[in-house]
Amino acid sequence: MAHQSNSSSQGKRIYIQEVATRDGFQNEASFIETADKVALIDSLSACGFAKVEATSFTSPRAIPALRDAEAVMHQIHRAPGVVYTVLVPNVRGAERAMSCKVDEVNLVMSVSESHNRANLRMSREQSFAQLKDVVSAVRESGVAINVSLSTVFGCPMEGDVDEAEVLRWMARFAELGVHGFTLCDTTGMAYPSQVEQLCGHAANVFPQHELTLHFHNTRGMALANVLAAIAAGIDRFDSSLGGLGGCPYAPGATGNVCTEDMVHMLQLMGYDTGIDLPALLQAAARLPGLIGHDVPSQVLKAGRRLDLHARPDYLDEAERSKELA
Amino acid sequence: MAHQSNSSSQGKRIYIQEVATRDGFQNEASFIETADKVALIDSLSACGFAKVEATSFTSPRAIPALRDAEAVMHQIHRAPGVVYTVLVPNVRGAERAMSCKVDEVNLVMSVSESHNRANLRMSREQSFAQLKDVVSAVRESGVAINVSLSTVFGCPMEGDVDEAEVLRWMARFAELGVHGFTLCDTTGMAYPSQVEQLCGHAANVFPQHELTLHFHNTRGMALANVLAAIAAGIDRFDSSLGGLGGCPYAPGATGNVCTEDMVHMLQLMGYDTGIDLPALLQAAARLPGLIGHDVPSQVLKAGRRLDLHARPDYLDEAERSKELA
Repeated sequence: MAHQSNSSSQGKRIYIQEVATRDGFQNEASFIETADKVALIDSLSACGFAKVEATSFTSPRAIPALRDAEAVMHQIHRAPGVVYTVLVPNVRGAERAMSCKVDEVNLVMSVSESHNRANLRMSREQSFAQLKDVVSAVRESGVAINVSLSTVFGCPMEGDVDEAEVLRWMARFAELGVHGFTLCDTTGMAYPSQVEQLCGHAANVFPQHELTLHFHNTRGMALANVLAAIAAGIDRFDSSLGGLGGCPYAPGATGNVCTEDMVHMLQLMGYDTGIDLPALLQAAARLPGLIGHDVPSQVLKAGRRLDLHARPDYLDEAERSKELA
Repeated sequence: MAHQSNSSSQGKRIYIQEVATRDGFQNEASFIETADKVALIDSLSACGFAKVEATSFTSPRAIPALRDAEAVMHQIHRAPGVVYTVLVPNVRGAERAMSCKVDEVNLVMSVSESHNRANLRMSREQSFAQLKDVVSAVRESGVAINVSLSTVFGCPMEGDVDEAEVLRWMARFAELGVHGFTLCDTTGMAYPSQVEQLCGHAANVFPQHELTLHFHNTRGMALANVLAAIAAGIDRFDSSLGGLGGCPYAPGATGNVCTEDMVHMLQLMGYDTGIDLPALLQAAARLPGLIGHDVPSQVLKAGRRLDLHARPDYLDEAERSKELA
């Protein structure tokens, strides 16, 4: 397991996938106006993301915050080169999504039984059967299919999750013909050596699938986990503007790994993220006004590493007095 | 540059040095009572730290928060195996410290001229001359001497700092006969590939010196930087309970790397930190009451990785109805 050294990171492409308007907004107490969502997605599209998870075609009763999914998808500007993905829970959601000509549908279930029941109110087998129907409904359309597996690095109710169990669920979906997997650290239980090991195995077993890692910063390890995943060969990450998001079924959980903090670190290390960081920070700076509260972004607060500060006035004064003396 | 793989981390000793009562408390607006400082240090001593930076023998006018340095050093219980270190800025401070029978004195200056002038109101040459006198005053006493170099990973006013400049200041102090160095990322400008490179060079050039790394989480990279330093062979880290601290001359800066977040991660990875994490978290939980505000600790908020949550009530209800049906 080789750490990405400075030299090997130079220019290596890392694909960044923004999830704030889906994973972030679905947890917000207040409804974000459709026009604001569209404006934000359009500004994100201009930042250079590989993929944007725009919204979720869930029941408006289940997630009222995203009840405007069709309107959002019809009103956004589709930037060339950006994959627009949406979460769909069932065939009805898939049909709504396809009628909006999405590029990809993202299916989700947990690999731990308790979390799947708590989050989706179904057994894992019920979820799998439902998602199998979605795959059947979508597969012939040319729309890509990604499966997000929750709690792969641990379940907040059951504890450790067996790596074999993760690979088993990946294999079941691979058999259905899905195109990619997202391994989700839903409640921030992943730690770097575990990440490097699981990512290495998953990449070995499913070399033809697009693999995305989705970290939460619940216990402060998100950026360390990103580097551990890169060391294992992963080149694709979900992240959330401002660090928005979090799982309502995981008490104490903080948000997704913060996009600007992750991009800032990766760019300093020489990775090619394709992201326009100043534009990204401008978009992040508008978030608190949009959602009505502060966000856990560090770089938004502290500035980029080389955003320098003026020398304190008293230094100049001291030098002036010296010159006068 | 080899990443610490899971297997090689098993049981490897990492030395943790707590700085909250010096680096943290000196930035607090309200005075922490001496008895509270002593009780906190005693509880930290019982947690298994390799070193505790207890206080600072600075002028009470310059840092009134630590004006009780003698009382603190006389009243704490010295746990066997723990090195008690204190910051001293000058010969007067060193004499006060030695009269309290400290184990180590910690000298500090910045490797960038602007930051040294802003923080210490002297040129670097003036600082070096003053610290050289401290070394002369202390060297024959048997008390260990550590030098903390600030802004080695970047200066918030000057920007990048040349690695050669860091090594040059280390060499000047090494010639004086000091025992250890702390490389400080004073305002959170360090990034992992830079850390791995500088730590590797410093460890190569000064193999006989104790090397400590001191990170701030200003831009979210502290834990990633800790792992990068370990990959370069570093085994000794400063950290602050609750993530307390920060530099008043670095606007927007957040605190030191949080002890409990760092220890939590390192223990999960198999490192031997010597720390009793439950006892550490109990100490951290008392901090907000002591200082009157919240702390940026993640593990204190979210709990340890395997502090599991109860399954939601509705799951049990659903199962009960199933049984009744």
